[in-house]
Amino acid sequence: MSATWQPGIGQAGNMQDWPLLVSTLVDHAARNHGRREVVSLTCEGGEHRSNWSEIRHRAMQVASALRTMGISVGDRVATLAWNTHRHVESWYGISGMGGVAHTINPRLFDDQIVYIANHAEDRVLFFDLTFVPLVERLAPRLTTIEHFVLLTDRAHMPVESPLDLLCYEDLLAAAPADEPWTIVDEKAPAGLCYTSGTTGNPKGVQYSHRSNVLHAMAACMTDTFGIGAQSAVLPIAPMYHANAWSIPYTAAACGAKLVMGGPHFDAPTLQKLIIDEDVDLALAVPTIWLGMLQHLEKHGGGLGKLERTCIGGSAVPRSMIEAFDKQGVRVMQLWGMTEMSPLGTVGTALPEVAAMGYDEQVGYRVKQGRGIYGVEMKIVGDDGAELARDGRAFGRLLVRGPWIVGSYFKGDGGNVLNAEGWFDTGDVATLCPLGYMQIVDRSKDVIKSGGEWISSIDLENAAVGAPGVAEAAVIGVPHPKWDERPLLLVREKEGATVSKQGVLDYLDGKIAKWWMPDEVLVVTDLPHTATGKLLKTELRERYKDFKFPGI
Amino acid sequence: MSATWQPGIGQAGNMQDWPLLVSTLVDHAARNHGRREVVSLTCEGGEHRSNWSEIRHRAMQVASALRTMGISVGDRVATLAWNTHRHVESWYGISGMGGVAHTINPRLFDDQIVYIANHAEDRVLFFDLTFVPLVERLAPRLTTIEHFVLLTDRAHMPVESPLDLLCYEDLLAAAPADEPWTIVDEKAPAGLCYTSGTTGNPKGVQYSHRSNVLHAMAACMTDTFGIGAQSAVLPIAPMYHANAWSIPYTAAACGAKLVMGGPHFDAPTLQKLIIDEDVDLALAVPTIWLGMLQHLEKHGGGLGKLERTCIGGSAVPRSMIEAFDKQGVRVMQLWGMTEMSPLGTVGTALPEVAAMGYDEQVGYRVKQGRGIYGVEMKIVGDDGAELARDGRAFGRLLVRGPWIVGSYFKGDGGNVLNAEGWFDTGDVATLCPLGYMQIVDRSKDVIKSGGEWISSIDLENAAVGAPGVAEAAVIGVPHPKWDERPLLLVREKEGATVSKQGVLDYLDGKIAKWWMPDEVLVVTDLPHTATGKLLKTELRERYKDFKFPGI
Ligand SMILES: Nc1ncnc2c1ncn2[C@@H]1O[C@H](COP(=O)(O)OP(=O)(O)OP(=O)(O)O)[C@@H](O)[C@H]1O
Ligand SMILES: Nc1ncnc2c1ncn2[C@@H]1O[C@H](COP(=O)(O)OP(=O)(O)OP(=O)(O)O)[C@@H](O)[C@H]1O
Ligand SMILES: [Mg+2]
Ligand SMILES: [Mg+2]
Repeated sequence: MSATWQPGIGQAGNMQDWPLLVSTLVDHAARNHGRREVVSLTCEGGEHRSNWSEIRHRAMQVASALRTMGISVGDRVATLAWNTHRHVESWYGISGMGGVAHTINPRLFDDQIVYIANHAEDRVLFFDLTFVPLVERLAPRLTTIEHFVLLTDRAHMPVESPLDLLCYEDLLAAAPADEPWTIVDEKAPAGLCYTSGTTGNPKGVQYSHRSNVLHAMAACMTDTFGIGAQSAVLPIAPMYHANAWSIPYTAAACGAKLVMGGPHFDAPTLQKLIIDEDVDLALAVPTIWLGMLQHLEKHGGGLGKLERTCIGGSAVPRSMIEAFDKQGVRVMQLWGMTEMSPLGTVGTALPEVAAMGYDEQVGYRVKQGRGIYGVEMKIVGDDGAELARDGRAFGRLLVRGPWIVGSYFKGDGGNVLNAEGWFDTGDVATLCPLGYMQIVDRSKDVIKSGGEWISSIDLENAAVGAPGVAEAAVIGVPHPKWDERPLLLVREKEGATVSKQGVLDYLDGKIAKWWMPDEVLVVTDLPHTATGKLLKTELRERYKDFKFPGI
Repeated sequence: MSATWQPGIGQAGNMQDWPLLVSTLVDHAARNHGRREVVSLTCEGGEHRSNWSEIRHRAMQVASALRTMGISVGDRVATLAWNTHRHVESWYGISGMGGVAHTINPRLFDDQIVYIANHAEDRVLFFDLTFVPLVERLAPRLTTIEHFVLLTDRAHMPVESPLDLLCYEDLLAAAPADEPWTIVDEKAPAGLCYTSGTTGNPKGVQYSHRSNVLHAMAACMTDTFGIGAQSAVLPIAPMYHANAWSIPYTAAACGAKLVMGGPHFDAPTLQKLIIDEDVDLALAVPTIWLGMLQHLEKHGGGLGKLERTCIGGSAVPRSMIEAFDKQGVRVMQLWGMTEMSPLGTVGTALPEVAAMGYDEQVGYRVKQGRGIYGVEMKIVGDDGAELARDGRAFGRLLVRGPWIVGSYFKGDGGNVLNAEGWFDTGDVATLCPLGYMQIVDRSKDVIKSGGEWISSIDLENAAVGAPGVAEAAVIGVPHPKWDERPLLLVREKEGATVSKQGVLDYLDGKIAKWWMPDEVLVVTDLPHTATGKLLKTELRERYKDFKFPGI
């Protein structure tokens, strides 16, 4: 990008130089929405009620404590923590003193956590009580961590530990809250999150202050999350999973009430929290909502004032959209990725779609959504040439924008942008004339049958509507004649019995004849990634020697 | 601001370098909302229906035509034009080729227009048919303009003119639409607007690409304009008045339908346009809405699907808020200034306020609003020390943010920021604990009576509620004992008769006793600035020898 303009030479006439720093978000919240609540369930048990003014005050104490420890601008400070007020304070404190808040996914394998923490050269680790055993076990292998900070108060500190544990509340009590934020360049890093590394070692995505702030502004737009000072938002998506989809930033930018579940992800606890705290928007991956819908079906009780659910991370089946509609709750599908901070598309309705009949509308709502301002998308064929936006042509989805990765941390993976600066999402998609994007599949999950492609996602979404089916997974299995053919695995709902023929009968007429799975197996368990998605690599491994009947 | 971080050194891990350019707004609109309409009444008569895809296409042709004329990055291209599709296309075309779109207010005096155009060194002038006589009259004095482009088609070109006029539609027809946008630094200038220069010569505020884009993103937030792809927006505020409050940018950023009145500002035409085009949000200064409310009172007919009016530029009287509520239309007050792009505050409700009874709520809605993310505000006393945010203490209002002026064009006015980077708005205000800002007065309009201040704005807003009063103005007039005392001037509604005693009786109990005007005069006309505000300097001049009765 050429810079043909020199600031301040002769003409003056400049706008103010006001860097887009993460600290300005919490400053705004404290200044204009200081009494707006931040409520979280805690690891110690019970709930904690705070507000934006207190969050900022304590974040400044975190910043000060880190400076006292000798942490410098650009250093990584890791967290192994649930969604709580302390995790939010730590975030703002770390970024606010120029550090990089590195959220580690505690559901990763030990080896992955060790690899990630050492690769990031984390100097401090903030962690929840839940993870004391994990951290004690891994500590000898964490070669760069100098300080272990337990996110609790004195009363809950373990009586003994092989580690020299610092108590978070003690640290804060001893730290001043009046040292100003550290002013860094807006392109300096503020956060770090590793991909889950389904294939190969995880790679780090470093968010800058600028990318986090721009992403938060875009997320607060009416057609994105559409939240404001009157909203109460519950991010069930964890902070270690692409920044809880940016809610701790966006809620601050607009002064919304922030509600967090701490270590709890079970339907009854979340239902109670939604009702008690007047939550109107909650965000989670489909598996969480699957559990919630089953719970509601069985025990009722409704969802209080919940108006909308944002669902992303995996495709949202039609049956889920319809089930929520019956609860009076509107589903907005999101698509994004760790590499995109994470937002790419949101499924809010265009006027053309809002004017359609229900069935046709749902046809658009199962798509992944419309590109928000700041995200450019195009689909390309194998030769790299752009394909038509006609809703039929599909190809690799490329993206460009200010909150999309330009290079992985430490240069891992090499150059990930093409010559025009596009990043390949690894997804295969269509774009329709109205601007809706639909994921056909991950490029590595798509099933190649007789020279044509079958979308494993579409098959799964259809199958999950069949009576008694709780979850469905489809993988391609080698076939002598067709290259690959689909194998459908289904998990039954509690108390239900599912038969192969029942599922095939249900699918008949809903999908193309040649997409019909060659086999349906009922399984008791499906493997998931650390972010709750179907682990297709594991499934392909399990069924690598599978033979279709009659082959 | 220190830059302690060096991009690309060793660590990599950067987000993409995607500059915030004005062209990305119209690109987004064309790509994702290409068929969404842009409708405008025209100077030739009738209406013109376009859409975002066409706007972008033609803007690219404007860019190309300017390049062919030899216009370079950083050059100023002026417009003297109403809100029309052609003005919007010109804007995006000028900024899109790296030029600076300089909107000139046609309601200024000849001398001011000449001063501004020469000071800006405008090289091209785009202007509407309406302004042919004006431009022909001024042309000999416009020393830098090389090309005069009339914003019309061949059929409407004047048969003869002393000027060598270019026809806009001919220029476009001859220009290619496939030259890519010019990529400049995001801090390079994109637009220029001069203050109206109530005192001294006007000064230029140069908007950068970055400031326009950030402002548009903030304006699209739910609690700011709250518009999205389903909205239809009518900016009655002209594009030459602080960018029509950014609507041509914000509507593009969210894909809203854009509706524009061309040369028309009369109530019947605007009412018809609002109804015919299903406008749900319209924005204008109070005087426009005053005319509309009087028209509705007399002729009825309602406002179709209008849900909200944004009103700013001058204080919104309580009576206006109440009158709109009766129409089922919600008033959102805005405060801002040319130097702020223009948005500073918006009067959307906090949950605390939404929970109040009607009267108490209106008490908050007459305040100027809450600071949006990106605008820092504080009030200071004469010594520069910050005052309490208690809703009572008042002082000079200082602001800071990325879309607030840092220096005027060519350095006019010298250094306008204090040591900490704050800009003095020239307004005197209070800030309340809930974060609402209320303008007490312009610092130059406030009335100093016996060591205390009287707010001319509060008095005007109270007086305009009195039966028969159409408009009210209050100025301070010298007084031997009290320094200054308030003089109230009122203009009567058509057909009404107003008496001094009637007004004083009405005010009794609504304002402090010692604020009671010492005299009330009924006048047939009140002077206004080029942006439709009361011209207090002129009033003070008119009444400089006025003596209160009995003095
Ligand atoms: N609404 C959605 N519908 C379908 N797929 C989705 C949706 N949202 C996200 N995805 C999938 O999730 C991917 C991004 O997920 P994420 O960044 O959390 O990690 P991952 O790709 O699952 O794993 P890894 O970290 O190993 O790359 C997208 O590339 C897409 O394949
Ligand atoms: N909602 C409002 N209530 C009261 N005053 C307002 C409001 N909105 C704007 N103003 C006034 O308008 C001013 C900004 O107006 P603008 O930038 O259009 O030009 P101006 O200040 O009227 O004239 P000049 O260009 O000569 O400075 C603010 O400083 C404030 O005094
Ligand atoms: Mg991925
Ligand atoms: Mg001004």
